Amino acid sequence: MQKVNLSEKLQLFADHWNPRIVGELNGQHVKLVKLLGEFVWHSHAEEDELFLVLEGRLLMEFRDRTVELGPNEFLIVPKGVEHRPVAPEEVSVLLFEPASTLNTGDTTNAFTKTGLERI
Amino acid sequence: MQKVNLSEKLQLFADHWNPRIVGELNGQHVKLVKLLGEFVWHSHAEEDELFLVLEGRLLMEFRDRTVELGPNEFLIVPKGVEHRPVAPEEVSVLLFEPASTLNTGDTTNAFTKTGLERI
Repeated sequence: MQKVNLSEKLQLFADHWNPRIVGELNGQHVKLVKLLGEFVWHSHAEEDELFLVLEGRLLMEFRDRTVELGPNEFLIVPKGVEHRPVAPEEVSVLLFEPASTLNTGDTTNAFTKTGLERI
Repeated sequence: MQKVNLSEKLQLFADHWNPRIVGELNGQHVKLVKLLGEFVWHSHAEEDELFLVLEGRLLMEFRDRTVELGPNEFLIVPKGVEHRPVAPEEVSVLLFEPASTLNTGDTTNAFTKTGLERI
């Protein structure tokens, strides 16, 4: 049982779209990720995802609207809902989601990350 | 799908040791709670619990040591581990835990809260 300081963990990496695992409980992962630019459209058949913005600004695009998130704001994207994260500037995000979650959901492409690092 | 602003939600209540539900995903709840003073010793037989400090300072007492948490720090208390939250000053905390989690774990007493409010 070690406490996790989010600011310290964010200083350990600089690349984008590459989530790190910083905690695990009840079959869920707590992850940190830095985003910049446009991701790919995808959905997760089985997993709801929580995005909590720590620093910066995140646009979560849906097919019919866009939700803008700033620091200390979170959004839960239910399973099955197509979404695309867009970060006009760098944003640091905490993710809560099942350990089974693949970052690109039901698609596989250059953004797909498996075997995530634990920091 | 509505975003949740944690600061705005924290302004909606002032009492202590009374968690509010602000999100639900994958059978887990996201809760906000304000703490002040000493809680009771307890453990959860089936649930791991995550405590993320938003404002203030939290002491998590274990039988053999105490972990101090400040803003943007979290601690995961594994199921079965006895713990007691202590807040010498008011602290605002985000909880992430299974929907089945009772705040006083395997004990029932004056602190026990059921039928939590959703805000």
